[in-house]
Amino acid sequence: MNQAEPTRRRHVLDLDDFTVEEFEKVFAQADAMAEVFSRPIKKVPTLRGVTVVNAFYESSTRTRISFEQAAKTLSANVVNFSASTSAVVKGESLIDTVRTLEALGCDIFVMRHSMAGAPYLVARHFHGPVLNAGDGRHAHPTQALLDIYTMRKHLGKIQGLKVVIIGDILHSRVARSNLWGLTKLGADVVLCGPPTLLGPARYWKAIFPTVRVSHSLEEALPGADVVMMLRLQKERQEGGLLPTLREYTRVFGMTMERLQLAAPHALVMHPGPMNEGVEIDPEVAICARSVIEEQVTNGVAIRMALLYMLAGQRGAA
Amino acid sequence: MNQAEPTRRRHVLDLDDFTVEEFEKVFAQADAMAEVFSRPIKKVPTLRGVTVVNAFYESSTRTRISFEQAAKTLSANVVNFSASTSAVVKGESLIDTVRTLEALGCDIFVMRHSMAGAPYLVARHFHGPVLNAGDGRHAHPTQALLDIYTMRKHLGKIQGLKVVIIGDILHSRVARSNLWGLTKLGADVVLCGPPTLLGPARYWKAIFPTVRVSHSLEEALPGADVVMMLRLQKERQEGGLLPTLREYTRVFGMTMERLQLAAPHALVMHPGPMNEGVEIDPEVAICARSVIEEQVTNGVAIRMALLYMLAGQRGAA
Amino acid sequence: MNQAEPTRRRHVLDLDDFTVEEFEKVFAQADAMAEVFSRPIKKVPTLRGVTVVNAFYESSTRTRISFEQAAKTLSANVVNFSASTSAVVKGESLIDTVRTLEALGCDIFVMRHSMAGAPYLVARHFHGPVLNAGDGRHAHPTQALLDIYTMRKHLGKIQGLKVVIIGDILHSRVARSNLWGLTKLGADVVLCGPPTLLGPARYWKAIFPTVRVSHSLEEALPGADVVMMLRLQKERQEGGLLPTLREYTRVFGMTMERLQLAAPHALVMHPGPMNEGVEIDPEVAICARSVIEEQVTNGVAIRMALLYMLAGQRGAA
Repeated sequence: MNQAEPTRRRHVLDLDDFTVEEFEKVFAQADAMAEVFSRPIKKVPTLRGVTVVNAFYESSTRTRISFEQAAKTLSANVVNFSASTSAVVKGESLIDTVRTLEALGCDIFVMRHSMAGAPYLVARHFHGPVLNAGDGRHAHPTQALLDIYTMRKHLGKIQGLKVVIIGDILHSRVARSNLWGLTKLGADVVLCGPPTLLGPARYWKAIFPTVRVSHSLEEALPGADVVMMLRLQKERQEGGLLPTLREYTRVFGMTMERLQLAAPHALVMHPGPMNEGVEIDPEVAICARSVIEEQVTNGVAIRMALLYMLAGQRGAA
Repeated sequence: MNQAEPTRRRHVLDLDDFTVEEFEKVFAQADAMAEVFSRPIKKVPTLRGVTVVNAFYESSTRTRISFEQAAKTLSANVVNFSASTSAVVKGESLIDTVRTLEALGCDIFVMRHSMAGAPYLVARHFHGPVLNAGDGRHAHPTQALLDIYTMRKHLGKIQGLKVVIIGDILHSRVARSNLWGLTKLGADVVLCGPPTLLGPARYWKAIFPTVRVSHSLEEALPGADVVMMLRLQKERQEGGLLPTLREYTRVFGMTMERLQLAAPHALVMHPGPMNEGVEIDPEVAICARSVIEEQVTNGVAIRMALLYMLAGQRGAA
Repeated sequence: MNQAEPTRRRHVLDLDDFTVEEFEKVFAQADAMAEVFSRPIKKVPTLRGVTVVNAFYESSTRTRISFEQAAKTLSANVVNFSASTSAVVKGESLIDTVRTLEALGCDIFVMRHSMAGAPYLVARHFHGPVLNAGDGRHAHPTQALLDIYTMRKHLGKIQGLKVVIIGDILHSRVARSNLWGLTKLGADVVLCGPPTLLGPARYWKAIFPTVRVSHSLEEALPGADVVMMLRLQKERQEGGLLPTLREYTRVFGMTMERLQLAAPHALVMHPGPMNEGVEIDPEVAICARSVIEEQVTNGVAIRMALLYMLAGQRGAA
């Protein structure tokens, strides 16, 4: 991060308001953080004495631990709390919790919540930076940043890339945040899935005019630089949006054979956790083109970068 | 803390045996700790290599995190465990747990338990200091210390202050510990609430002769220097002690209008978590006289002071 | 640990493949670690920047905190996760979790799981060391190491010791791992319990030819150097393997009187948590011969030693 020209951003709630310059700043900072995280002794004193609260109102392994690793690698204090062990049981309001955590010396607020918009509410009441770690079906900006960072690392640039996102687009905060980022950076995004999980094309085009919609992998995949599967929530079947998981897999599950339709250099991505054998064949998940594990590692670098950049804004806010 | 004249106290289980001098020592130490906690880099090496166990047999956000922040700011190791994830599931006795935690190198035992008296049992078996973080309806000494510390900071002294405590006094460990501390330091305490949540006046007067009891805010509030609301447990209604919450709010809920009955400089306090709209109007909670958030911050300073003072007693015990 | 001649071991999954030399190396290293852990400031920078994940798919107080204390004393980062708060809820596979934790920078994988063999599966997929903290009814190698280390500290050597293990041998991972270690080191082990909790003698003799089996304390105890009780799972009664707990206690519960049958210097051991009054009389648990609390403390030293030795193998693996 250029110390002479710091970010003015106070929170990271979604990517809809990120500028091209801001993406580049975050990615450059993540490069520096990835170097720190690859050292045998993964520890720098950068955020010593700063407290990061991980407020997870929805359970999560990977995202919570990713933020925890990012914060601890920077020597921050980490306070974890989850809904089940918190005052939610006593009916305390979210705003009261936020004020309390601030008064308890929490400097940076990382939160996941099942209600879309909850981090925006928190950002209005918390004096320090708020990082959205996933809110309902709305946004998951750090996931999208790590996805785009991973594409950029492998393919050099985002401008002009063909990115095919496959699966339950309608209910996916990962897809939404990726759409904001990828379209801003000039990617050619194709959304692919059954109509019940995709919704009307005009809905997507109204928000993201350059986006294309397809109901067929055979139509969507040719020429793809990135093939991104989304997790299929098994609840979708119960909700009547899918006849059976087996049928979904037959039509939209990614196999090595189907992957041949994409460009030879195409990256295989998945935000995890995977339903192997449903939306992705186990062979695909670990094939040479898969960058799924690297996504996870890049996620720590992205979150280190964001924590560092936002922490620098605390006084200036 | 005056190093030449250290406290002899080994545990903090309640405030009934605190002397006036001891209160002053804790408050002076908390002043020093508040300064540390207000630094941009909130970290001193004071308790490096000391392990504090947070044993919470009842869920809590604010108190658990407050102790965690206090301990980590002093560079202690913190081990959290809660009943649901502990050997309680296997029927291990509390005493066996205590011996085990001691053998595991835990130096200071912070505990919350739904059974009144549980920390006293622990103190008989644990070799190091025990800090009661709330036991049943019995005591919550660190909360009362932070409450009294907050009053003293704003109003200079406790002697002669009129403190009105409003609400479910009968079931409140916060009220009980405050009564021990406030009466020892010479405050004029008035307990105010409906008879079913207050119990007979003769009960309170037998223990705290100077205390007054009132069933009317209009009678209790005039001249009050401190107006302290307690959390109304919604279970009280189900238990038949209240007709409806709405009725409670109508008669005892604190509004801006009622607050005018108190002295113009009166502090508004609440131990949290609040039921906004029940015992306290949201407007009152954030009004200029409210020190509710400051109570939370002062709680960290008080707990830092206690951890530090008790840790110094470990060898001498 | 002799730096010139390091261990080649990558994982600790059970003790069945430990050599006599390896036991001695671990015990010598544990001696050094016990010294560190007994200091007033229990902290050395040995594993700074190394991340230890405590993956507990079964609840545990003592073992989880023991590993946490061991890792933190060596200045490692500790990431705790338990099944209830993890992606298990979302049906993520164990292997996917392992890959994710590795990608998140976890260096050492400590795990407890209700399924026998689960740590072996993890070891095949995790690039770093795996430490089995208990898997089903199969193995609990760190418990057996601390048990044997405790015997060796008090009695000088294991060769020729008479060790009587009493209770629910059939379902005990503690007994199994102790059997591997004790028989390798030349102890004379007697298994004692009711037939329903012991199984056929030929089963044990097929695996551990030197082991003896007895259904009577009066027969087993004379001359014993070590008397080790196992926890009696109350579920055994419900499963029909025991008539009543009271009957078990009458025949196999350890009392001060029965303890007189063993050698005068005999150690009383129990892996905890104890059912006091069932398999062990409270008086026996705290008598002069009991080393039950010392076992717990030695467990931290053993786990420090293993974390340190295995961490040194990370690059070499």
